[in-house]
Amino acid sequence: MPVACSAPATLLGMDHPGRLRGLQAALDKNKLDSFLITHLPNVRYLCGFTGSAGALLIRDKGVTFFTDGRYIAQAREEVAGAHVVIARKAPAVAAAEFLAESRARRPIGRLGIEPHVVTVGQREQLDGILKGKWKLVSAPPLVERARMVKDADEIRLIRQAVELVAGLFRIARAKVRPGTKEVEVAAAMEHEARRSGAEGMSFSTIIAAGKRSAVVHGRASGARIPGRGFVVCDFGVILAGYCSDRTRTVHVGRASGDAQALYQAVLEAQGAAIARVGPGVSAEHVDAAARKVLRKHRLARCFTHSTGHGLGLEIHEAPRLAAGQKQQLEPGMVITIEPGAYIPGKQGVRIEDVVVVTGNGCEVLTPTDKELIII
Amino acid sequence: MPVACSAPATLLGMDHPGRLRGLQAALDKNKLDSFLITHLPNVRYLCGFTGSAGALLIRDKGVTFFTDGRYIAQAREEVAGAHVVIARKAPAVAAAEFLAESRARRPIGRLGIEPHVVTVGQREQLDGILKGKWKLVSAPPLVERARMVKDADEIRLIRQAVELVAGLFRIARAKVRPGTKEVEVAAAMEHEARRSGAEGMSFSTIIAAGKRSAVVHGRASGARIPGRGFVVCDFGVILAGYCSDRTRTVHVGRASGDAQALYQAVLEAQGAAIARVGPGVSAEHVDAAARKVLRKHRLARCFTHSTGHGLGLEIHEAPRLAAGQKQQLEPGMVITIEPGAYIPGKQGVRIEDVVVVTGNGCEVLTPTDKELIII
Repeated sequence: MPVACSAPATLLGMDHPGRLRGLQAALDKNKLDSFLITHLPNVRYLCGFTGSAGALLIRDKGVTFFTDGRYIAQAREEVAGAHVVIARKAPAVAAAEFLAESRARRPIGRLGIEPHVVTVGQREQLDGILKGKWKLVSAPPLVERARMVKDADEIRLIRQAVELVAGLFRIARAKVRPGTKEVEVAAAMEHEARRSGAEGMSFSTIIAAGKRSAVVHGRASGARIPGRGFVVCDFGVILAGYCSDRTRTVHVGRASGDAQALYQAVLEAQGAAIARVGPGVSAEHVDAAARKVLRKHRLARCFTHSTGHGLGLEIHEAPRLAAGQKQQLEPGMVITIEPGAYIPGKQGVRIEDVVVVTGNGCEVLTPTDKELIII
Repeated sequence: MPVACSAPATLLGMDHPGRLRGLQAALDKNKLDSFLITHLPNVRYLCGFTGSAGALLIRDKGVTFFTDGRYIAQAREEVAGAHVVIARKAPAVAAAEFLAESRARRPIGRLGIEPHVVTVGQREQLDGILKGKWKLVSAPPLVERARMVKDADEIRLIRQAVELVAGLFRIARAKVRPGTKEVEVAAAMEHEARRSGAEGMSFSTIIAAGKRSAVVHGRASGARIPGRGFVVCDFGVILAGYCSDRTRTVHVGRASGDAQALYQAVLEAQGAAIARVGPGVSAEHVDAAARKVLRKHRLARCFTHSTGHGLGLEIHEAPRLAAGQKQQLEPGMVITIEPGAYIPGKQGVRIEDVVVVTGNGCEVLTPTDKELIII
């Protein structure tokens, strides 16, 4: 593959100019004269560009988008709300050179950069171009904050992506059999995802069978599914740029009393967390609701990850549902609810749905039956 | 999927302790008292760890590896040549706190960081932890330089990955038919890759048919293959951590004189570039060899990307084969040779192989027939 690659897809109906105007309006309050956006999911969110090389320069007098010669046609087709510049250099470098030529309202302008994305090396390069004319400052995560609350078009796309994975689980159910390799189950699901129009999986499919079900990130391996035990299936697709994520745990062969109790405890914890989701609720309180149930079942120490995360253009976005996370939920936020319990060397269970926060609680996208399936 | 994920795979036989010792020996010459490695492919290269959260702290008196509680068992199994610390914080933060407690040989120690990886936000955080005790300095790409030259074990793994993609092309040949969707061809190839043990594709499979063959990064779309025209197939897999990359362009239906001439020109350019590869040759001269042939055919302006790139643990590594790249080739470097020519709105051709630089030229890994295939 030639260096750098694109991911074409259109996001029709998104209000990109409105999003850009919102960000322009926030510059002053954040003491910025200009804001350089280089995180590609943020670029896509703000102006619709889906390629692999692009930077947005936000100023109160206008928005300019920079890309390179590979994306002339694509930028023309996709970018909304910004003036397009095709550059011979890296987009961020081209943006800095453009800015170096322009005058800030102050003697030294304040250019916001995204501190979680711009590397030390890039910063040194930008500093060299902007010399003393512009001061680079770490901007707050303004775009990430906006992206937390999805609009109707985004929720529609995420719903479609979630529906696609609900269908994939039928394939998993049919493929999970003693003796089959985990990776064969994943391959069948991924094949169907592609045939159904997914751009790809949103992460490496997890199929973790038997003792491996206790491995939190049990990416499908060459191991064969044993004759008895849990199989954790955690998978998601990217459809029109938006991610989905779902986990179901099934049991091969007769489930022991311990296994059934473990499953029911996680299911109860998941239900409690979903019941806690609503506007004005802190992210940490949703996490605490799941943890409280598992503590009651003496499984607190077996739940070794957070209860969930936002998702959208990225598989892991804000908010994070974990201890200490004070972010209040708002209608339109889309989050996963995925408690689990893992007994190292023995077995593990995780159950996950995607929910959207509504005005008075939440809606589980594509609800499906969650009773323990015995195969 | 719970936040953060792993990619288990073992790299048996790699000389991780030797690689670490080489890096330790290079600290002094580069005026570093310590070096913090956070780029995960570099971490994997140096100590064998394949998870998603890890940092290596290199000091002349020893090497310490930091990860979190999810990777206790995996770190024990995989990491060689370093003392393992399981931390409750992000690995780089844990490494900085560990370092803050230790004493440098100078009043203020010099800690090298990877400027192409460490973000501005991370640097601010590390600076806060190390206060005035350690000065952060942008280190040269010492690990990337070492990684350019592959050892015998790495070449063996890349060879296996290249052999797997050579097999996938047979699937593409069988699937490419008028009326078939590009994405269906990709899905069949990706399914077979997974079944053959690939961890995944090394990039989004490119199947670009008809007019789309002129799009350099024509990721497989929902478009149907037309009754006549080129189909560019560019694809690669990751096998045991190592990437492969191959492009073949086939023609559906009778090829016009123009199409045949275009194909032959690119094939000639590819052959000229391969013939130029050898120890001591500058990367830019290999690029120039391909460009010279295309110029002769009046196609210079139709070749809009570089001639190739290194590959290994990452799909795009140093060296880059492009104008201005003075890097001299050395035995053991593994690079792609992939000239192309694209007539916008009409048709395009790209032909790509992976070659390893030898003592007196190069070896094409898994050579296959490159005459124009008519389907």
